[in-house]
Amino acid sequence: MQTWIRFRRADGSIGHGRLDEADPNRVVEYDGDGFDNPRPTGAVHDRAALTVIAPCAPGKVVALWNNFHALARKLEKPVPTHPLFLIKPASSLAGPNDAVQRPKSYDGKIVYEGELGIVIGKKARNVTVAEAGAHIFGYTIVNDVTAAELITADPNFPQWTRAKGFDTFGCIGPAIVTGFDWKAASVVTRLDGVERQNYPLSDMIFSPEEQVSRISQDLTLMPGDVIAVGTSLGVGSMKDGAVVEVSIAGIGSLVNHVRG
Amino acid sequence: MQTWIRFRRADGSIGHGRLDEADPNRVVEYDGDGFDNPRPTGAVHDRAALTVIAPCAPGKVVALWNNFHALARKLEKPVPTHPLFLIKPASSLAGPNDAVQRPKSYDGKIVYEGELGIVIGKKARNVTVAEAGAHIFGYTIVNDVTAAELITADPNFPQWTRAKGFDTFGCIGPAIVTGFDWKAASVVTRLDGVERQNYPLSDMIFSPEEQVSRISQDLTLMPGDVIAVGTSLGVGSMKDGAVVEVSIAGIGSLVNHVRG
Repeated sequence: MQTWIRFRRADGSIGHGRLDEADPNRVVEYDGDGFDNPRPTGAVHDRAALTVIAPCAPGKVVALWNNFHALARKLEKPVPTHPLFLIKPASSLAGPNDAVQRPKSYDGKIVYEGELGIVIGKKARNVTVAEAGAHIFGYTIVNDVTAAELITADPNFPQWTRAKGFDTFGCIGPAIVTGFDWKAASVVTRLDGVERQNYPLSDMIFSPEEQVSRISQDLTLMPGDVIAVGTSLGVGSMKDGAVVEVSIAGIGSLVNHVRG
Repeated sequence: MQTWIRFRRADGSIGHGRLDEADPNRVVEYDGDGFDNPRPTGAVHDRAALTVIAPCAPGKVVALWNNFHALARKLEKPVPTHPLFLIKPASSLAGPNDAVQRPKSYDGKIVYEGELGIVIGKKARNVTVAEAGAHIFGYTIVNDVTAAELITADPNFPQWTRAKGFDTFGCIGPAIVTGFDWKAASVVTRLDGVERQNYPLSDMIFSPEEQVSRISQDLTLMPGDVIAVGTSLGVGSMKDGAVVEVSIAGIGSLVNHVRG
């Protein structure tokens, strides 16, 4: 297991690297985009001198709906036969501690959805379940923010993409962990310090490998792309000013706040 | 009005340029990505020696639903109050003469939708209608290919993104025309040589400037991004092997075929 971050230096330039296993306050810098044969640049940084940003720059975020048994039962929805998804665009990306900006056009409920994120490491097109693992670089945390009332605002066209696609509605971070054992982990979401979600990832309907395989039959996944694997029980709305923290032990905590 | 293309040279490398107005068989090459202050490289090519590819490399294609009065009337849908859209990912891009590849998992109807495409020239975030024109580089042609039966295949989640997001389902080209007067133009779609769509762009509900302005309130549009403005009457399905040609006088003809 390695922990990878992207960061902004004091001069504004952006880099990435992994935390030194012996001293996680030291960041060992790597070149390239970090997914395909990254090489150390020789530089080592004091983590406190860096601003941690979103750990990858996805071209797209594939966001799943209805991928946990417990939530499917609560919503009385059948288990899907193929991952059900929409796309959050690259422009929706937000990093650790970034504000979630309320859209000017929208005064309804803004909802958090704490999720595991799969980060693609190698281009994946028509890969089998057995091959899928080799295309996963690691795992991160996603808050799949949603302007919930927009989804059904037009009776003729459910606006999943718009509701989840606003700038800053794709919170990702704080790190990518390689070789992460998701089966033993839980997603815990706290709203203003109060626990609202705490669900085991083992309850997932399509496993990460199944998701990568099946989605890669539909569309090519590129290095840095993220699959947000879906959420489970405890989704709720965030008032302006609220602070939301999504934690997965072994990856870290992703903290964001809502700016009205 | 200038006509811009992207092309593959005989050695496989990719470039772009504009057609010489005096002799459109001559391609004047430009550097950069072609949207922000492109500069001529000094090279001039014989167009016949180049393979024309999709005229831009969008990070995302924002595809509108229900944006023509005639189709809204036929479907008995009200005119929307905001553009209704989904996102076709960059991975769905296909260029002129490329095959539309039938997904292995799908044996249902594959539908053509001939459309005008808006190509963004400058980053657009919260722009007004009056400012929007300055953010449009030009106009192209889109065939917004759709695996129509997938949209409603799951009764609980309409799969707009998956149905329209398969690799090769975003056909764009053959060129981008700057200063194009869309108000006077029509979209004509021919399936195996038979005219199936012929509708005036003046019937559009949200104009290109309104689309850029309103969508930019939701999500940042980047140079090279494309807005597919929606289709009108005459949508239909394409059998494997079918050839579909979408034409807009002044831009050209976008020809693709379906590969089963």
